[in-house]
Amino acid sequence: MAGDSLPVVERLDIVHEVVSVMPDGAKWVLRGVTSNVRYITRAEQDLLAVKQADLGRPEATLAALIPIKKKVAWWDLPQDERRRIFEESSHHVKTGLKYLPAIARRLHHCHDLSEAEPFDFLTWFEYAPEHAQAFEELAAEMRATEEWKFVEREADIRLAR
Amino acid sequence: MAGDSLPVVERLDIVHEVVSVMPDGAKWVLRGVTSNVRYITRAEQDLLAVKQADLGRPEATLAALIPIKKKVAWWDLPQDERRRIFEESSHHVKTGLKYLPAIARRLHHCHDLSEAEPFDFLTWFEYAPEHAQAFEELAAEMRATEEWKFVEREADIRLAR
Repeated sequence: MAGDSLPVVERLDIVHEVVSVMPDGAKWVLRGVTSNVRYITRAEQDLLAVKQADLGRPEATLAALIPIKKKVAWWDLPQDERRRIFEESSHHVKTGLKYLPAIARRLHHCHDLSEAEPFDFLTWFEYAPEHAQAFEELAAEMRATEEWKFVEREADIRLAR
Repeated sequence: MAGDSLPVVERLDIVHEVVSVMPDGAKWVLRGVTSNVRYITRAEQDLLAVKQADLGRPEATLAALIPIKKKVAWWDLPQDERRRIFEESSHHVKTGLKYLPAIARRLHHCHDLSEAEPFDFLTWFEYAPEHAQAFEELAAEMRATEEWKFVEREADIRLAR
């Protein structure tokens, strides 16, 4: 975790539409959009497609929402240098693949939504209790990478249903 | 030009803030954000930095606003294939460089702003009347590329002040 934390909440509501007014009782609202891939190659995409897991599996009763903001220094890098850090150095795809299909993921982008967004990405993970330890390993591996040196704010919200 | 055109307008107002209500007398509003580069390498960025021209030069009395929407097939491509089409095949950077500093440019992104955005990019060009022919050549070169085969809607708005 880095930077200001988010106020603790009892529940999280996932809304698949634009929220323009803070809902009654909400302490905060985060918004993001799914989008095209930014770094992965055809070969990596093909590997991911084979191992990909859907969200919403009945056995995946645990989830993690990890909103991330990266430093300006990250965004100022040209594409080839961000790609090198992302994969050749940090093995972002390779590490994610290792934990598929146990840990399903979805990435939401917020960096370009407005200048007021508190985070750049909302990363979302779903897994069964038997894979809870694997998820901690995945999170620890990602946080030890060169890519993570560019993270200036990070929250970590765990959920169960 | 491809797809539906935009209603013709007499004037264009450039607003550097969020427009949430259609201004009086406006026929349409387009919005976009500047963002990080998506394809260019460090070497290309360095070349661009040397030749780059600012917007707002007094002699650059002509401008073009070319909003573009790309096909879903473009967005579905992995990063390495979009890069290959963008530069190795279409020479997007190399062509832009050839016309710098005469033709100043700025790219605005709208693809991820909302599902309702009519375009993915708002491309903006400024140049002096003596470079008007060069701008037509630049536009023609870009439209003849493999990248342009992925354009499904394009408007072309010319302005003078």
